[in-house]
Amino acid sequence: STLHSRFRMSSGPSFSDHTPVAEKPKTLVRDDAKSDEESMRVRFEKMIRSAQDDICAQVEALDGCKFKEDAWVRETGGGGISRVLQNGNVFEKAGVNVSVVYGTMPPEAVAAASARGVTRDVGYKPGEPVPFFAAGISSVMHPRNPFAPTMHFNYRYFETDRGLWWFGGGTDLTPSYIFEEDAKHFHSVLKECCDRHDKEYFPKFKKWCDDYFLIKHRGERRGLGGIFFDDLNDKPADEIFKFSEDCASNVCSAYLPVVERRKDSEYTEEHKRWQQLRRARYVEYNLVYDRGTVFGLKTGGRIESILMSLPLTARWEYDHSPEPGSWEARSLEAMKNPKDWA
Amino acid sequence: STLHSRFRMSSGPSFSDHTPVAEKPKTLVRDDAKSDEESMRVRFEKMIRSAQDDICAQVEALDGCKFKEDAWVRETGGGGISRVLQNGNVFEKAGVNVSVVYGTMPPEAVAAASARGVTRDVGYKPGEPVPFFAAGISSVMHPRNPFAPTMHFNYRYFETDRGLWWFGGGTDLTPSYIFEEDAKHFHSVLKECCDRHDKEYFPKFKKWCDDYFLIKHRGERRGLGGIFFDDLNDKPADEIFKFSEDCASNVCSAYLPVVERRKDSEYTEEHKRWQQLRRARYVEYNLVYDRGTVFGLKTGGRIESILMSLPLTARWEYDHSPEPGSWEARSLEAMKNPKDWA
Repeated sequence: STLHSRFRMSSGPSFSDHTPVAEKPKTLVRDDAKSDEESMRVRFEKMIRSAQDDICAQVEALDGCKFKEDAWVRETGGGGISRVLQNGNVFEKAGVNVSVVYGTMPPEAVAAASARGVTRDVGYKPGEPVPFFAAGISSVMHPRNPFAPTMHFNYRYFETDRGLWWFGGGTDLTPSYIFEEDAKHFHSVLKECCDRHDKEYFPKFKKWCDDYFLIKHRGERRGLGGIFFDDLNDKPADEIFKFSEDCASNVCSAYLPVVERRKDSEYTEEHKRWQQLRRARYVEYNLVYDRGTVFGLKTGGRIESILMSLPLTARWEYDHSPEPGSWEARSLEAMKNPKDWA
Repeated sequence: STLHSRFRMSSGPSFSDHTPVAEKPKTLVRDDAKSDEESMRVRFEKMIRSAQDDICAQVEALDGCKFKEDAWVRETGGGGISRVLQNGNVFEKAGVNVSVVYGTMPPEAVAAASARGVTRDVGYKPGEPVPFFAAGISSVMHPRNPFAPTMHFNYRYFETDRGLWWFGGGTDLTPSYIFEEDAKHFHSVLKECCDRHDKEYFPKFKKWCDDYFLIKHRGERRGLGGIFFDDLNDKPADEIFKFSEDCASNVCSAYLPVVERRKDSEYTEEHKRWQQLRRARYVEYNLVYDRGTVFGLKTGGRIESILMSLPLTARWEYDHSPEPGSWEARSLEAMKNPKDWA
């Protein structure tokens, strides 16, 4: 669920409006706000860019290979920085994107967000386009070893020019093979992080994640979940900001120890094949259901940044199902029936 | 563009209603119509089942491997026969499906079809569910050799219980590497076939195909096109039936000589890589845009039959673009700018 252009429906596709820049700008926030260091726009961009730096540095330390960086700006303001590590030692493909979007959305989109839980009065006339600002970090990491899980995270902040705002995000794990201790570690770190901010967060956001990542036509989740939230604005923005920041800065401690533990495990061709079949499910979810991906593709986001979430390779075999009772079958079962890991 | 459940929106998902049968039924048409040998329902089912037999036999003769068959029936009548050849000598994955669907659709769906060109008055009350019958054959074949192109075809007949009807279908080619003589042969066979029935068909259906298979977010077609038509009912049904039958029976003469010519060509890892990158585009098109696939997945079609269209394997590299002037670049160019091959 990348943030790209989720609300750019009104401005229409503009696939070419991503001008590469050799030197990435100090800020992607427009002039009118960038001098206000206290503004959430500036603070959030700083936070996600610093998270991008930290996370990429930790991943590089583990992998031994470097991310390749692409930065771009858009005519109407905003832009992004994509970092991708492909064909690494540990990661087949890992990407961490930051982006800042200025756009307009129809007032119905604001109304839809309100219906989902954002309750502030907006005061726009029917049909009046609503200018908005959005900033987010999003990432997917696909390791090479079939026993090392894929991980996705995404944290975003959204604000209209007249003061409506909300936060969204989440972190989730997608193994091909289930290891209880890995799932437990990952979920526990997320739970501790949530609990530091609100004891109700983890159970609520854990369930939201299980519901959100359902591949409906398969009756399976994409993976073993984690946390997911959207339209969050029922506390002071500063508190939710700190929660988002805490989540982003715990991605590595939740995920990298698991990769560390599995990255050098021996595996067979059969293990690799099952990983490839599961990666095809990842593709199915992202291209068919993921809101960020689908809207991004249809409304002019930067294609390569959006699709960096797809695995390097995937495999579709007709009517494949794992041997009953096998590790593969047990892993699949865990995607069908979410349980509490933390 | 499989036919599955394109109009089953009103009956909702029912993923489990596909009961496997060991022996395939003589007909999938319900009792009430099957004794009427003159009815289009019976004639169309016969035609597509015989096309399935013929095409599979020709493909088996070329490949040396056999199709695996799955037949199923549905509680409400209808069912299907899927044939898949996987890991063959020539084909990595080839599938030919036949299906017969009984369902109901909201009258707005009839209205939408009317807006697209089906002009008969229907006489249903607003909101009244419209029972329909649909039958179709659909197929995708992905060869192993990167110089041998993928091919898709699909012919379908649709009828409501009160006499509204139309035909749809098409045949199209998706090479990774362009060979002018292959494109020319393929398009010429389709043109000759169209010309036997109506001189206006080929130019019209060729353009329709180029428009339909556009991967909008890439600004590329899925392949080099062919023919595509929908909502066809502006001639006597018998004439359009004969046209559809002629198209289906020319699939092999359009396609197999091309595969024969390329199947044993030597190739490098780089050629295979480009094929895999192009197959990822095939996946993107089918999962994001293809009407039959997306509606089928969301409304309860038989998942494995719908997704048999996906390649065995595919590859997504971040920000890949072919060397300017290379064969790969020229092939891509041909997907961006359709031309007349016939």
